[in-house]
Amino acid sequence: MSRLNDLHGGADSTGLDAALAAMAAVVGAANVLADGATRERYARSTAARPVHPLALVRPANADEVAQLVKIAAGAGVAVYPISTGKNWGYGDACAVGAGQVILDLSRMNRIIHVDPELAYAVIEPGVTQRQLSDHLLQRGYPLWADCTGAGPDTSYIGNIMERGFGHSPYGNRLQHVAGMQVVLASGELLETGFGHYRQARAAHLFPYGVGPFLDGLFTQSNMGIVTRLGIWLMPQAECVNHFLCSVPAHADIADVVDALRPLRLDGTLRSILHIGNDMRVFSGSGAFPRAAVPQGARLPEALRQQMRAKGGVGAWTVSGALYGSHAQVAAARAAVRRALRGTKGRTRFVSERSLRAGAFAARLLGNTEAGKRLRTRVALGESLFAMNRGVPDGRFLSGAYWRRRGGVPVTFPVQANPAQDNCGLLWVSPVLPLRGADMLAVHELARASFDKYGFDLFATFSMINERALGGVLTVAYDKDDPDEAARARACHDEVFATMFEAGYIPYRVGNHAMGRLDPQGDSYWRTVGAIKAALDPAGILAPGRYQPDVAPGLI
Amino acid sequence: MSRLNDLHGGADSTGLDAALAAMAAVVGAANVLADGATRERYARSTAARPVHPLALVRPANADEVAQLVKIAAGAGVAVYPISTGKNWGYGDACAVGAGQVILDLSRMNRIIHVDPELAYAVIEPGVTQRQLSDHLLQRGYPLWADCTGAGPDTSYIGNIMERGFGHSPYGNRLQHVAGMQVVLASGELLETGFGHYRQARAAHLFPYGVGPFLDGLFTQSNMGIVTRLGIWLMPQAECVNHFLCSVPAHADIADVVDALRPLRLDGTLRSILHIGNDMRVFSGSGAFPRAAVPQGARLPEALRQQMRAKGGVGAWTVSGALYGSHAQVAAARAAVRRALRGTKGRTRFVSERSLRAGAFAARLLGNTEAGKRLRTRVALGESLFAMNRGVPDGRFLSGAYWRRRGGVPVTFPVQANPAQDNCGLLWVSPVLPLRGADMLAVHELARASFDKYGFDLFATFSMINERALGGVLTVAYDKDDPDEAARARACHDEVFATMFEAGYIPYRVGNHAMGRLDPQGDSYWRTVGAIKAALDPAGILAPGRYQPDVAPGLI
Repeated sequence: MSRLNDLHGGADSTGLDAALAAMAAVVGAANVLADGATRERYARSTAARPVHPLALVRPANADEVAQLVKIAAGAGVAVYPISTGKNWGYGDACAVGAGQVILDLSRMNRIIHVDPELAYAVIEPGVTQRQLSDHLLQRGYPLWADCTGAGPDTSYIGNIMERGFGHSPYGNRLQHVAGMQVVLASGELLETGFGHYRQARAAHLFPYGVGPFLDGLFTQSNMGIVTRLGIWLMPQAECVNHFLCSVPAHADIADVVDALRPLRLDGTLRSILHIGNDMRVFSGSGAFPRAAVPQGARLPEALRQQMRAKGGVGAWTVSGALYGSHAQVAAARAAVRRALRGTKGRTRFVSERSLRAGAFAARLLGNTEAGKRLRTRVALGESLFAMNRGVPDGRFLSGAYWRRRGGVPVTFPVQANPAQDNCGLLWVSPVLPLRGADMLAVHELARASFDKYGFDLFATFSMINERALGGVLTVAYDKDDPDEAARARACHDEVFATMFEAGYIPYRVGNHAMGRLDPQGDSYWRTVGAIKAALDPAGILAPGRYQPDVAPGLI
Repeated sequence: MSRLNDLHGGADSTGLDAALAAMAAVVGAANVLADGATRERYARSTAARPVHPLALVRPANADEVAQLVKIAAGAGVAVYPISTGKNWGYGDACAVGAGQVILDLSRMNRIIHVDPELAYAVIEPGVTQRQLSDHLLQRGYPLWADCTGAGPDTSYIGNIMERGFGHSPYGNRLQHVAGMQVVLASGELLETGFGHYRQARAAHLFPYGVGPFLDGLFTQSNMGIVTRLGIWLMPQAECVNHFLCSVPAHADIADVVDALRPLRLDGTLRSILHIGNDMRVFSGSGAFPRAAVPQGARLPEALRQQMRAKGGVGAWTVSGALYGSHAQVAAARAAVRRALRGTKGRTRFVSERSLRAGAFAARLLGNTEAGKRLRTRVALGESLFAMNRGVPDGRFLSGAYWRRRGGVPVTFPVQANPAQDNCGLLWVSPVLPLRGADMLAVHELARASFDKYGFDLFATFSMINERALGGVLTVAYDKDDPDEAARARACHDEVFATMFEAGYIPYRVGNHAMGRLDPQGDSYWRTVGAIKAALDPAGILAPGRYQPDVAPGLI
């Protein structure tokens, strides 16, 4: 373990060294890293500014986490837990402020239990999308896990703690969790739900337990370190259809949203639909055309229209999946067709059969333009199908690489890591009523800022539940260009402020925005502060994380 | 306001009088009641022992609640909020201990807003099932609210706070709540979700908000007084079918449960299925036959079999509804038929058309035995259909009157009130894995105690989510028979203990069982205690409620 520099806050250098030595006695010296290269690596972020940790400590189990927390409390050192540290665009593996010891939980990657009959797994924070997917496939369990597009190496628990959402009927991930194990700042081990009764038989089957339901308290917070949870899995469906609805002209998306809302409300559309603009589609199959556009970060309008025409891409594309028996999927397909009839959307359904036929036709067409176009479509369809069926795919991360010099690296998508790959990426994620008019309003508000700062707006709106859209507005920028990076940050901040003021509050924020969550000093945040003070009086756990009174002093 | 007797705890009589006078200044003297008759009325419970409040105070809005809480804190008087006080069988309108001032929120019965497009309402604690149902019908909103069988006059918020469940696809009620307004012990008004941002547009559309998700903390707890919330409503379905599956022999229910589980897991069965035993059916259409059975509280086995045969009642009846378009319901019906083919269950589907045909046939059959039987069936079908469509029905409360002398009163079911009607009723509500074997095991464990104490076991098992059954084991007893009442309490306590030890933990408990929730002194309850101490240091709000360290001293 190397000597530390002076970045740390609370403890003095000697106290910190002693604490790290004590931590090494718990986890083994090989799992305490404080060398410059490691600290650099964990400082990297898709945000412009690196945030250096004091050190990295890698526990193997919840008992070790508890011991580490006690040591940290004794030494007055803040610890910041990460699962696998792949919170792309929201802070990645970085703490909210420098001078914290990162607890990297990625070694805690056991799939403790899978129950094929009742369709759930019990997992640790290091378990990744790929790992769980492989595990289910290899053991032949007839179950699928929900997937996000954030890539195969992202942690389920990490994503759930941030209340992320995926694509399947289980995409509202927090609603498919039962029974958490949490290490508190006291070092005590808490089990939520029924799990604190050792004899409980429904610990991972019924989230609420009896008494106050605490799970929500540990999401988007710094109240404890979740070291295990039960995650519900989806039984494999007899039939899956994917549907894609392309909307040629921008404003026409509003009618499509309003036409689909009743189907989301009545349960016909049980999965989370995603509505992406043309930029989301373009960035899925290539990077910014620097050769054609040497100046500026934007596609000239003529080129954008040309790319739309060439790729057969609409201003908007709606993407979603239907699950069920063949009869149920047929009924849902008919309902979707009927709902969209009066709109300008062009709908097509992709089944496994049509995908196979497409692949066959693409081979016949060979290297013609038509063949290439069809191959691109088939590849996208295959990735979507894989994701619907619980097999994660890194290609949906390609948007992060849009402005990166050199585009996606050769290691992509197998080892996609936008933070380590020097991608510039910032997100604003407003929640809005599930209504076409609100979607257009949010888009218009955002576009003004993106125009002003010279960026193309990447926009996705997801039907995160039956009544709300979750917008993800992406600023993709060139991190090697300091001026562009500064404009990106300014653009993010302005969009964030505009959305906030207009009442489109984010469902999740990046580290750099934690301090902006309580502009009015309201009773919600005071209550959160009172609970935090009760559970972690010394403020040892992840100071500043969803803690707007503390964050500004750290950033 | 009359003078108080000496039942109260903390404040002395003068202090209490002063506090009540201050409260009267807030809510008006007419809304502070401390007379003997009122205190008697609110002391009544389906449990054997009455629990007398000090007084009853009826605020009109959240601001008044906040002022009352501050007065109570100043005087050291505990306040106990009830919505409409119809928590049948779990404590009714009673506080956990005597000597508390009941805050009766039933005057706060405004339906503040209904959004027909995004399908939700914002309601206060006094809003009842009947009131919301009538409101939606009268205004012609194409929406249904979830219903429970607890009767038309029960409060939505009261039930949600206890994490009750209903019958429809929205039966997991807490999952269909977004945005709470809570009065804290400090008198501060808290808004959860996005609501604390005044400008938020999705306050009732997306429950989580940003930052720690607190809603769960205020359910089954005494952390605050919920004075308003957003409740999601179900769009009216084009088609509803009810299905009933009768299982003649007891043990054969296990196969039926296991056959239906995959349909619940895969989303074919989106509503909450209820599985009731024969006693549940008998008690739906009459009281205990005292004339035929003058001694004891049980049906002789021969009579029970005779009643089954006469009514065409199985040992178990599964009851559930299918919602959707005609094509979707047809597909679901086919899936249910297919799943149950190999079991001993006799399944029939009831549609609105078949119900009308049945009513017509019953009229033709007139007063014959067959006509009467058909009429009974049609009446049950109509009540089930009404409930599926959000119209509450008091008849499902009739089980509470089973052992009552005189059976159901003439006011039943219009003004069903088991506590005021002197019904004896205690419930044990274990949660178990959604598996036939677990259901039989729980039934067997319970039956041993019911046999021992001389009661017939009323059992319902509801598929409260896709992986768990919520059991409701009812002890219905004659409150006018002290010996029977004592046996009922002993039976309840033994069943509670047996279930608990066997790992079938209750999802909800009655006031008399609050003290039994933490036999091991575990970290969950310590954490709950720490949060309670932070939010309500003086312990003003509902002491003992889901507070196992405090409850025993009160009971």
